[in-house]
Amino acid sequence: MAELVGNVLVGQSGGPTAVINASVAGVVAEALNHVDIEEIYGSLNGVLGILHEDFIDLASQSQQAIRALRHTPGAALGTCRYKLKKQADFDRVLEVFKAHNIRYFFYIGGNDSQDTADKISKLAQAQGYELRVIGIPKTIDNDLPNTDHCPGYGSVIKYIGTTVRELACDNSSMGQGDLVQIVEVMGRSAGWIAAGASLAKRKDHPHDPPHIILLPEIAFNPEKFTAEVKRVLSREKFCMIVVGEGLVDTDGNYVTADSATDAFGHARLGGVGEYLRELLDSNLPGVKTRVASLGIAQRAAAHCSSKTDNDEAFLAGQAAVKAAINGETDKMVTLVRGDTEHYTCETGLTPLIEIANSVKKLPREWINEDGVSMNFQFLRYAQPLVQGEVAVPYDAGLPVFANLDKSRVDKQLPAYGA
Amino acid sequence: MAELVGNVLVGQSGGPTAVINASVAGVVAEALNHVDIEEIYGSLNGVLGILHEDFIDLASQSQQAIRALRHTPGAALGTCRYKLKKQADFDRVLEVFKAHNIRYFFYIGGNDSQDTADKISKLAQAQGYELRVIGIPKTIDNDLPNTDHCPGYGSVIKYIGTTVRELACDNSSMGQGDLVQIVEVMGRSAGWIAAGASLAKRKDHPHDPPHIILLPEIAFNPEKFTAEVKRVLSREKFCMIVVGEGLVDTDGNYVTADSATDAFGHARLGGVGEYLRELLDSNLPGVKTRVASLGIAQRAAAHCSSKTDNDEAFLAGQAAVKAAINGETDKMVTLVRGDTEHYTCETGLTPLIEIANSVKKLPREWINEDGVSMNFQFLRYAQPLVQGEVAVPYDAGLPVFANLDKSRVDKQLPAYGA
Repeated sequence: MAELVGNVLVGQSGGPTAVINASVAGVVAEALNHVDIEEIYGSLNGVLGILHEDFIDLASQSQQAIRALRHTPGAALGTCRYKLKKQADFDRVLEVFKAHNIRYFFYIGGNDSQDTADKISKLAQAQGYELRVIGIPKTIDNDLPNTDHCPGYGSVIKYIGTTVRELACDNSSMGQGDLVQIVEVMGRSAGWIAAGASLAKRKDHPHDPPHIILLPEIAFNPEKFTAEVKRVLSREKFCMIVVGEGLVDTDGNYVTADSATDAFGHARLGGVGEYLRELLDSNLPGVKTRVASLGIAQRAAAHCSSKTDNDEAFLAGQAAVKAAINGETDKMVTLVRGDTEHYTCETGLTPLIEIANSVKKLPREWINEDGVSMNFQFLRYAQPLVQGEVAVPYDAGLPVFANLDKSRVDKQLPAYGA
Repeated sequence: MAELVGNVLVGQSGGPTAVINASVAGVVAEALNHVDIEEIYGSLNGVLGILHEDFIDLASQSQQAIRALRHTPGAALGTCRYKLKKQADFDRVLEVFKAHNIRYFFYIGGNDSQDTADKISKLAQAQGYELRVIGIPKTIDNDLPNTDHCPGYGSVIKYIGTTVRELACDNSSMGQGDLVQIVEVMGRSAGWIAAGASLAKRKDHPHDPPHIILLPEIAFNPEKFTAEVKRVLSREKFCMIVVGEGLVDTDGNYVTADSATDAFGHARLGGVGEYLRELLDSNLPGVKTRVASLGIAQRAAAHCSSKTDNDEAFLAGQAAVKAAINGETDKMVTLVRGDTEHYTCETGLTPLIEIANSVKKLPREWINEDGVSMNFQFLRYAQPLVQGEVAVPYDAGLPVFANLDKSRVDKQLPAYGA
């Protein structure tokens, strides 16, 4: 493979996960192994950091700080939802890369981020600037194509499964067939996250909570839903419902969209969990309904993250560097499940362009006939992803997270006026 | 001390905590040490179980099951909010106690539960039935008088502190001075729980999140609040607000009460977190506000509970049995902090009647002048309570909780028609 000597730049983009920083740690750990790599820079706030030359030196961080990245939630480098659009933006990126001799660019993110990475790479090629670009998958939504699953997903469903089991203990002590617990989880366009709550059921206990999982894949029918809740309450002390935020009606509209502003122009309060509570308050008087809306906490719960997920996020970071050193570019690292009985996972590569333009749907055949529970195919898929616990260090009773030294690498260019 | 040979009954009442079952485990462990104690029964669903003779045999449970109680959230015996009122109810309780030779009654609960326990004891004395009644404190609200703190409190604030730190990592990666994170926590009448979130601040980092803590002790002023949020956002990337559900306005009314139904009769959606979001959406356009409403999850989070709290809940259960064996009755176990620099905690006893009729307020002098943060006196009080982590066993990636054998002890009396 042709030798390419120069610097690494790694960035993070989009919504963080509990393990997004483990991928940064993997990039740093692997980059240190290769003499072709000189400096290891992190871009602050994704592409914004590139436009403004806001780089930090990751190689000069303490080893404890890099190790602490492995259990630190949020994006330690900062992230952004800024989308490069103008040609001037792309030209600036290349100018900055040249000024800092960036020859290896690793971008940790989802569809949009990989699209950005691909465009940067294409521009570099057009300008004859040798650059290797490898994407590292990241999304709790688990909707990237060509990869068995996405780093971040295993941890979010481990946290939700744990929370559902704990809530079930509490509900079970209080309920007398008159208690409904709603857990609102993320996942606007696909039900991967809500489906993951089904892991809370013990093996061979199909009546364990969650009793009803509402997925965006199944059009919501209020009458059928109410009847289902009544049926569960006739059998159980309580009814546990897990709902993804992207629930849609039979016309494909978000069920909460109509109430975004009501006829009098009042702002919508609350999300789909509150919508369901209101529905049940009307339809099932005497039933007490509670909502837990976990919000961002679910994707930040490092203290309850999956070791398997964490290890794979680290592995993906390492694999990205190895691939680039081997001359690969315009690819995203994928996770490839072995076809053995015992779960194994290796990394692979897929073209960035394929990630940028498609999403992976939750297979309809993994959802039971009833539309509100998952079958063994989903469980077989999801169970290995939540295995193992991450040892988060505690000090004075609370977890301690990484603090990177944010001293900036010297800027080489005039400020960018974007 | 006069010997009293007979059976133990233990019950749980009110809202569960993450460690309420550790007190049951403490009662069982200690009761097994005393030959005066013959059977150890658990009442299912508090006083309801007494009225209906729904008892289970705790001594015949497996040792694993009793040990597993130490990390199982919810009330393993079930709980209730039923209040004994009619004389017939009280008479039935005594009749049931006599039928099962209950001579030691331990009731794990808050104010109302201790009031019930006291009344039962008084009735037994009036009827000349020898019975020893000891209350065991339990409440995440931490508002019982005569005890330094309450089992359940340390765990809920450890979980909230952890969640605030994790959310801060996520918010810090996304915010550019335009992001507000609201965390809605429990605590309707006192700010103990919301105040506990202040533990998330690192030592000597007063600007760490949470930036604003809204307490029921401080009347809510929307203009002052909005100005405070603006001030934080001018300084920080994001503004983290922790709010107790019982926030009140200057007239002492819940801020959410007015919106319970609006002028057009629409049902209120959401709680105080959504109320604050709506307020900020109106007052600070361009600022993105998110709400995490943890609901019951916060009092059920055994996977993130405090070892100190757990140990003390167990200790309180043991202490109750020891006190009763020593001839004490009509008392509640208290937690007594040593006055040494290094935190120590012993148990004491206080009359049940004093618990029944008062609540412990969060001291005003522990709240800073600004009304939205806590001072060193609170931190000195709260920090020891969250120390240590509880080792929860995991199977297949999720925590495993106790399952008691719920086979009923033989009933001795005709069914009760209450």
